[in-house]
Amino acid sequence: MRALVYDEPRSFAVRDVPRPVAGPGEVVVDVDLAGLCGTDLHLHEGGFFASFPLTPGHESTGTVREVGVGVGHVEVGQRVAVDNASACGRCPTCSRGDHLYCEDFRSLGVNAPGGFAESLLSPAHKVYPAQDLPPEVAVLAEPLACAVHGADVLALRPGADVLVVGAGTTGLLLAQLLLHGGAGRVTVAAPTAFKLDLARTYGADRVVQVTRDAAATAATLHDLQPGGFDVTVDVTGAASVVEVLPGLTATNGTVFVYGMCDEDARVSWSPYDVFRRQLTVKGSFAQVDCMDRALALLRSGRVRTDGLVTHRYPLSAYGEALETLRTDPTSLKVLLDPTA
Amino acid sequence: MRALVYDEPRSFAVRDVPRPVAGPGEVVVDVDLAGLCGTDLHLHEGGFFASFPLTPGHESTGTVREVGVGVGHVEVGQRVAVDNASACGRCPTCSRGDHLYCEDFRSLGVNAPGGFAESLLSPAHKVYPAQDLPPEVAVLAEPLACAVHGADVLALRPGADVLVVGAGTTGLLLAQLLLHGGAGRVTVAAPTAFKLDLARTYGADRVVQVTRDAAATAATLHDLQPGGFDVTVDVTGAASVVEVLPGLTATNGTVFVYGMCDEDARVSWSPYDVFRRQLTVKGSFAQVDCMDRALALLRSGRVRTDGLVTHRYPLSAYGEALETLRTDPTSLKVLLDPTA
Amino acid sequence: MRALVYDEPRSFAVRDVPRPVAGPGEVVVDVDLAGLCGTDLHLHEGGFFASFPLTPGHESTGTVREVGVGVGHVEVGQRVAVDNASACGRCPTCSRGDHLYCEDFRSLGVNAPGGFAESLLSPAHKVYPAQDLPPEVAVLAEPLACAVHGADVLALRPGADVLVVGAGTTGLLLAQLLLHGGAGRVTVAAPTAFKLDLARTYGADRVVQVTRDAAATAATLHDLQPGGFDVTVDVTGAASVVEVLPGLTATNGTVFVYGMCDEDARVSWSPYDVFRRQLTVKGSFAQVDCMDRALALLRSGRVRTDGLVTHRYPLSAYGEALETLRTDPTSLKVLLDPTA
Amino acid sequence: MRALVYDEPRSFAVRDVPRPVAGPGEVVVDVDLAGLCGTDLHLHEGGFFASFPLTPGHESTGTVREVGVGVGHVEVGQRVAVDNASACGRCPTCSRGDHLYCEDFRSLGVNAPGGFAESLLSPAHKVYPAQDLPPEVAVLAEPLACAVHGADVLALRPGADVLVVGAGTTGLLLAQLLLHGGAGRVTVAAPTAFKLDLARTYGADRVVQVTRDAAATAATLHDLQPGGFDVTVDVTGAASVVEVLPGLTATNGTVFVYGMCDEDARVSWSPYDVFRRQLTVKGSFAQVDCMDRALALLRSGRVRTDGLVTHRYPLSAYGEALETLRTDPTSLKVLLDPTA
Ligand SMILES: NC(=O)c1ccc[n+]([C@@H]2O[C@H](COP(=O)([O-])OP(=O)(O)OC[C@H]3O[C@@H](n4cnc5c(N)ncnc54)[C@H](OP(=O)(O)O)[C@@H]3O)[C@@H](O)[C@H]2O)c1
Ligand SMILES: NC(=O)c1ccc[n+]([C@@H]2O[C@H](COP(=O)([O-])OP(=O)(O)OC[C@H]3O[C@@H](n4cnc5c(N)ncnc54)[C@H](OP(=O)(O)O)[C@@H]3O)[C@@H](O)[C@H]2O)c1
Ligand SMILES: NC(=O)c1ccc[n+]([C@@H]2O[C@H](COP(=O)([O-])OP(=O)(O)OC[C@H]3O[C@@H](n4cnc5c(N)ncnc54)[C@H](OP(=O)(O)O)[C@@H]3O)[C@@H](O)[C@H]2O)c1
Ligand SMILES: NC(=O)c1ccc[n+]([C@@H]2O[C@H](COP(=O)([O-])OP(=O)(O)OC[C@H]3O[C@@H](n4cnc5c(N)ncnc54)[C@H](OP(=O)(O)O)[C@@H]3O)[C@@H](O)[C@H]2O)c1
Ligand SMILES: [Zn+2]
Ligand SMILES: [Zn+2]
Ligand SMILES: [Zn+2]
Ligand SMILES: [Zn+2]
Repeated sequence: MRALVYDEPRSFAVRDVPRPVAGPGEVVVDVDLAGLCGTDLHLHEGGFFASFPLTPGHESTGTVREVGVGVGHVEVGQRVAVDNASACGRCPTCSRGDHLYCEDFRSLGVNAPGGFAESLLSPAHKVYPAQDLPPEVAVLAEPLACAVHGADVLALRPGADVLVVGAGTTGLLLAQLLLHGGAGRVTVAAPTAFKLDLARTYGADRVVQVTRDAAATAATLHDLQPGGFDVTVDVTGAASVVEVLPGLTATNGTVFVYGMCDEDARVSWSPYDVFRRQLTVKGSFAQVDCMDRALALLRSGRVRTDGLVTHRYPLSAYGEALETLRTDPTSLKVLLDPTA
Repeated sequence: MRALVYDEPRSFAVRDVPRPVAGPGEVVVDVDLAGLCGTDLHLHEGGFFASFPLTPGHESTGTVREVGVGVGHVEVGQRVAVDNASACGRCPTCSRGDHLYCEDFRSLGVNAPGGFAESLLSPAHKVYPAQDLPPEVAVLAEPLACAVHGADVLALRPGADVLVVGAGTTGLLLAQLLLHGGAGRVTVAAPTAFKLDLARTYGADRVVQVTRDAAATAATLHDLQPGGFDVTVDVTGAASVVEVLPGLTATNGTVFVYGMCDEDARVSWSPYDVFRRQLTVKGSFAQVDCMDRALALLRSGRVRTDGLVTHRYPLSAYGEALETLRTDPTSLKVLLDPTA
Repeated sequence: MRALVYDEPRSFAVRDVPRPVAGPGEVVVDVDLAGLCGTDLHLHEGGFFASFPLTPGHESTGTVREVGVGVGHVEVGQRVAVDNASACGRCPTCSRGDHLYCEDFRSLGVNAPGGFAESLLSPAHKVYPAQDLPPEVAVLAEPLACAVHGADVLALRPGADVLVVGAGTTGLLLAQLLLHGGAGRVTVAAPTAFKLDLARTYGADRVVQVTRDAAATAATLHDLQPGGFDVTVDVTGAASVVEVLPGLTATNGTVFVYGMCDEDARVSWSPYDVFRRQLTVKGSFAQVDCMDRALALLRSGRVRTDGLVTHRYPLSAYGEALETLRTDPTSLKVLLDPTA
Repeated sequence: MRALVYDEPRSFAVRDVPRPVAGPGEVVVDVDLAGLCGTDLHLHEGGFFASFPLTPGHESTGTVREVGVGVGHVEVGQRVAVDNASACGRCPTCSRGDHLYCEDFRSLGVNAPGGFAESLLSPAHKVYPAQDLPPEVAVLAEPLACAVHGADVLALRPGADVLVVGAGTTGLLLAQLLLHGGAGRVTVAAPTAFKLDLARTYGADRVVQVTRDAAATAATLHDLQPGGFDVTVDVTGAASVVEVLPGLTATNGTVFVYGMCDEDARVSWSPYDVFRRQLTVKGSFAQVDCMDRALALLRSGRVRTDGLVTHRYPLSAYGEALETLRTDPTSLKVLLDPTA
């Protein structure tokens, strides 16, 4: 089968590779669509626990081609959404119930072959029936599952006043989860107008166009709401944005660090302010047990995806897809279609 | 001014009484609209900590007529929503931070004069600016505030699968809070079709018409979802319904007792089941600090009220209003308009 | 090797059976000590998901005899505490992160061979190094782990005023966890004086001798503390006790159902009281991820075990051990020693 | 009566001032003992919302001299512990249930006259019967109440592995609360040996002597426990210490900012680390509703105070007391005795 393969960082090609075979408790899935996201830019550079040679693609939906011994909940021909992340269940961390930090964490498309290929191999319990959702919707289950985990971690107080900075695919999904997750008001701030329009369409109570100058963003948002927001969320991954969030957070409020900043970036914060105004800072990373709830939310229609997919490419145009993701201001979710 | 006055249970009349005068830190509000709810039926009978003589009316909106010394956040002529409930802030329970169970709990319309009158007297901090909301919406802030408190108590897990039994005004408000409070799916079950239609309009994922035979309701809902619901909510106030909820609740799930059952009703439950399936049962009672969040949610438009108000009466037709509430199958929220 | 085997409920014998062999990721442990508890009385009757033929024994400590391929964290000759419970990690419930309710829950001594034998077979990740703890202490890690899970579920508010009813091994462990788990005051009530003395020795703030007449117990405890306790805990497994707990619970408090009542027992409760006083009822069942924390607490010395083990028998005297557990008023933890 | 009075920062004297008179709902307390703490050093400089002229003293115990109209729970001659902090109960923040951040927060000894005087005036509901506790113990109820609030905020997971840096009075109280608040292990690190000895006496599982060089402290503690601690607590108030805590915190763990750093100090942290390892940072500030629980814990004997009071001065020696607090390495709690 054809698959995109990186031999080392920055060096990739579409190749013929052996199609995987389903062992006991495994399934082979023919990939219908696979999404790119910012993580793929990091993996391209060799970051974020990538292991080479690597076939990326951690957001996949497809059709079951083969089921291994003992697999009962899906059958050949069924469409499924794939959860790329699995915990071993046996390491000390898993034994403490902390599966997300499994010492043998397996992530298809990061440290195991992912969805930028005609077929992928998955533990059977990590594929979820999705024949009732269009592939363009099902492919968003994985990023939404991460956002569901984020909502678990955040444990939003009903009626909270929330600021979300960043309106990429992830920001738009997370903002919707919070809108329908109990927020009293959600304000979305980001630089690009059409993304804010989409936020509005999805129900954001207020949108604010800002620039990439975080100090100016802080001033604008402070003027808008001098008392601050109960919860401020970064979904930009820009440390300069994260740095100004405590100042935009109300007394007793929470700064939610959802975006992935550069590993060597630092923010400078006042511990007196954390103490005196009793701030909370919380990070959220990936997920390992939220797919069923993400799918339920997609089915409910409350979390919308219409308009999110802006680009689609065949496997052979992966380089172009990556470039679009990196530079095209009109892009949100960029998909690869290995069947094209 | 004219006011409805009960001298004792079941004995009421509209009377001329002295209009209240605002002391320091108080306001007098001319009532624009005041809602009736099931509690008023209990008060009519002398139940629920009523203290006589009594002017009921615990859901009120109106226009500020007079402000006492030291009142700054509202002014004469401004429209407001009234929070009927106040804690003293000084008793041992308040001193533990447990204001809802204040030993000197004051509830306008229950143990102090309420909104079924031309004017009411309120602590100033218990009236909230609401000029941007139509009175028909603002009058629902108090029952919604109770539901916000319910959501605080419930602390819904994002993506949870929820069953709400009961589709009166309260059920319809609470179901919406849960729908936009993170539920993955909300099923509303109730006997009357038009209330279920409204639930649908408001976004319920699924509605189920049931009868008042709780065993039959249990069977229907069990067939629909044999594994049970993560959260089951009673908003009927019928003990027969509460009794069947554990059996409809998934392992590790929660039974939420929001409805007010008769004081002498009992449910028979299996403590083995609570232990073995690790069930949680939680009650929620009234509120004392949720008005601002209720108003934010009404402003957001996510919690809808169109269609909720079915009847409106002048003060003089209070008896009729009570009768409508008690018996008319086409009624939801019944309002008194003391200006009519 | 010799093992106690039930062919069917109530019919047991000590037999020669093949010693288990460690497959990959497994270990064989020579059992040093194994505890009996009330669950064993239920298993004897065939209850509590027992599967026959059965070798009971779910509280075990021993010495590693053999390690399978890929086992690194323990070695032959090392003493360990055994966690009898494992989740599959792959069923839908595990995939939601709810491992305790795994659809393929494996419990040594309940639905797989346990510790009433010379050796037992365990998944390697379910044995924990315990060479620094005497076997008489290490054997209590499993029941304490259940209590740690109980503490997780209960999430005690710091400073809470707690009532524990029941002072068997489990009550004495749980009471200590709560004493050192933030309780402001712990009152232990039970019928047998020497168990209350032990509770005192372990630090209980107050002990109350009661009878098996739950109404009388309720009256005594109500007189002692008319406002009720923030948290009331059943560790008797008597439904008559569970039934009176809401009445002994303070407004806004919690009834904690830790004891295992008979499957067909019922309690009769007032749903109005649950609503009006905003009570919470919570069940706690077993555990699957608390062993390391139980061992840490044993090591800290804060949870004490001196005096808990009252009887010790060789495997051949299992019948007598069971009888002691069932009827001897001087017994607390009864152990089997398969090396004797 | 005699009282210590600051006319402005750094300028104080013991003066004759009118003794306060109890209005309705108020009491006058003759101060038996009043504690100094680091906050008094800040107040001396005019920091921390001090309002002048000021009589400091926020940790007081005494004997009721006079009760105002309507005061029932204490009587003249009774010994009490004083909670210096009160919320108004009426501002918008109080109305949201967030009394700790009351916009009219009253703090005896900070922005109202405190306990460095022969008598003080207090809202009646802010004095707690304490005749059963020696004054040397009762005077510690206020700092312990702050620590109880800290425990509320922290919501320690049972069995957590905790690091406390700092072993002043506050660190020693908080460490005990965590020791008896569910921690599996508590390690206390601080520079001064005799304070660590006291930590040991109080039950700390492990103590580590460090210097004031935070990088060296970090290296020492990292070597001791390379995987980090579930919870790391700063009770030094040194920003250099706070800065190194994330690196000493285990994946998924919490940094607890309990110490008060300088207002202009900054820490430099990695937002990637917060995201990737899902860290939580939480601040805790003062308290407003924890006195009864602090007193319960003092009564239980689990939180010990023997050895905490190292110095005692008459009112006239306030300057010396302040100097001892600032510079004497043998001091922990320093008390003023206005009766001396
Ligand atoms: N926690 C998790 O589990 C998780 C899961 C998925 C993704 N993430 C992270 O979430 C972040 C967002 O992902 P995404 O896929 O939505 O990325 P994206 O498409 O690149 O969107 C980023 C958004 O942030 C804005 N932005 C970027 N830099 C900014 C700056 N300096 N100032 C203001 N706005 C700025 C962008 O503005 P423009 O529209 O003008 O470009 C855009 O609106 C990434 O860091 C990603 O790694 C985290
Ligand atoms: N916890 C709180 O703070 C709080 C606040 C407000 C209200 N409440 C309580 O919430 C409950 C609902 O209030 P509401 O104003 O919505 O009352 P409502 O208008 O009378 O509505 C009750 C709903 O329950 C249904 N119902 C009643 N008995 C039933 C039975 N035996 N079986 C099945 N369905 C039944 C009704 O069906 P029909 O449509 O056929 O009549 C209706 O849908 C009341 O008990 C009220 O006291 C609690
Ligand atoms: N949730 C979990 O994960 C979990 C884990 C382990 C055990 N458990 C359960 O916890 C319970 C206690 O276990 P255990 O091993 O400690 O049992 P145990 O040794 O039999 O102790 C039971 C205690 O309750 C007292 N008691 C029994 N019936 C009573 C009644 N009707 N009224 C008042 N007191 C009564 C007993 O009094 P005497 O001393 O006079 O006999 C004794 O103090 C059992 O139900 C067990 O199944 C639950
Ligand atoms: N959150 C709240 O509600 C609350 C309440 C009360 C107090 N606090 C704060 O808690 C902190 C501690 O109060 P306290 O009364 O215990 O103060 P303290 O008596 O001065 O004790 C401070 C402790 O930290 C150590 N320390 C100071 N600087 C250090 C450094 N750079 N490196 C390592 N260790 C250092 C001290 O060491 P030595 O023993 O060698 O001096 C001592 O052990 C203060 O910041 C105080 O403002 C907060
Ligand atoms: Zn693992
Ligand atoms: Zn009160
Ligand atoms: Zn499983
Ligand atoms: Zn206030």
